[in-house]
Amino acid sequence: MHVRVVLVRPRNPLNIGAAARAMANFGFSDLAVVEPYAPVWRETVSAVGAEKLVLAARAARTLEEAAGDCQLIVGATAVRNRRLERPVIRLPDFPEFLKKKKPARLALVFGPEKTGLSNKHLERCHAYLTVPTSAGTPSMNLSHSVAVCCYELARRDRSLGAAAQEAPLAEAGETEQLVRHVLEAFQTAGYLDFLPKSKRAEKIRRTLLQWSLHKTDIRLLHGILRFAIQKMKA
Amino acid sequence: MHVRVVLVRPRNPLNIGAAARAMANFGFSDLAVVEPYAPVWRETVSAVGAEKLVLAARAARTLEEAAGDCQLIVGATAVRNRRLERPVIRLPDFPEFLKKKKPARLALVFGPEKTGLSNKHLERCHAYLTVPTSAGTPSMNLSHSVAVCCYELARRDRSLGAAAQEAPLAEAGETEQLVRHVLEAFQTAGYLDFLPKSKRAEKIRRTLLQWSLHKTDIRLLHGILRFAIQKMKA
Repeated sequence: MHVRVVLVRPRNPLNIGAAARAMANFGFSDLAVVEPYAPVWRETVSAVGAEKLVLAARAARTLEEAAGDCQLIVGATAVRNRRLERPVIRLPDFPEFLKKKKPARLALVFGPEKTGLSNKHLERCHAYLTVPTSAGTPSMNLSHSVAVCCYELARRDRSLGAAAQEAPLAEAGETEQLVRHVLEAFQTAGYLDFLPKSKRAEKIRRTLLQWSLHKTDIRLLHGILRFAIQKMKA
Repeated sequence: MHVRVVLVRPRNPLNIGAAARAMANFGFSDLAVVEPYAPVWRETVSAVGAEKLVLAARAARTLEEAAGDCQLIVGATAVRNRRLERPVIRLPDFPEFLKKKKPARLALVFGPEKTGLSNKHLERCHAYLTVPTSAGTPSMNLSHSVAVCCYELARRDRSLGAAAQEAPLAEAGETEQLVRHVLEAFQTAGYLDFLPKSKRAEKIRRTLLQWSLHKTDIRLLHGILRFAIQKMKA
């Protein structure tokens, strides 16, 4: 699915740049601007890493011109108790909605900063998209709306970003060797001597297992134990 | 789980305001700022609807002071092929990670705009959080990072925002009435007369069913058909 972001009458050119950068962050590059207020909008300075995207953005006089070739036009809007004549999709449910609709080209339309999309433009949309926000502060910054929408659309795209890194966990056998080493240290120190050896081992094992130790932790702890045991025997 | 956002050495006071607004949008209110560059950061103007949040934000000299009471400190960072000595969690996997860790208080730490978190601060974190971004434009605007992280944390919170609105779908009986009405119109017009009546009904039914008509569509179409049939009979 190809995604086009359409900004209708954005007032502040900085917002166009910030929106373009957010798009680029999530791998989207098709931007259209309908009736920009400022004729100099292409000179926006905040499009770090997204200059090419802004330069390639198409200027359009109408929403039809900007999105006429799209199978699905979705308008971002704060619902605010209005009864809307189209389905309103909450952003977290949007991927599911798109899976059903399967558009080849999607236009995601954002209105002007202060007013949002006007009825004229809302009427051209197949559906509305709303970012669930807090009742006390429902109104989002324009480029933030673009950012979270792009994030949601790219959320399951495993090709973006680096892979998650997890330090390798210790294997059970490694933890068990550590249990024996701690036991040796306790014995050398005479610590918990009143307990039978098997009870001591149980106590140590329970503690070490709930720490979910990594391989590096195991090496570190063996080092400390070796040192401590030597010291105590000296 | 209580969430605190910690901004370390933010350079641009506008970013503090924009981050505060994004936090407020998603229902978070606890902001701490470590070593802000600009002494006037509280006068930030872009905190639409989040002025109270900025005024209540705590200023701290160190990360320890800002997050010492948190059970889990997570640093937002672009991974960029660095090998990090902590688990790195991709933002979409963060809710799952938190479900395992169950901190009562979480500190989400963001570094300065240009450089990100320094090693000094990275070392204080239990884990790192990375927003999966495109290799071509990996670096995000600071307040956009805060916005998408807050969005992800609030993503499953059904108390935020308005409920999804779906126009009520037509019931099967209503669609069947419409089939009969269309059939009547076809008959009046002599359209598809060469087909037996049952074949015509099948054709109409198949088409209408795949349109997933809403109740309002049904009313509209009945009106049009009534009008057309009258015209044809006149």
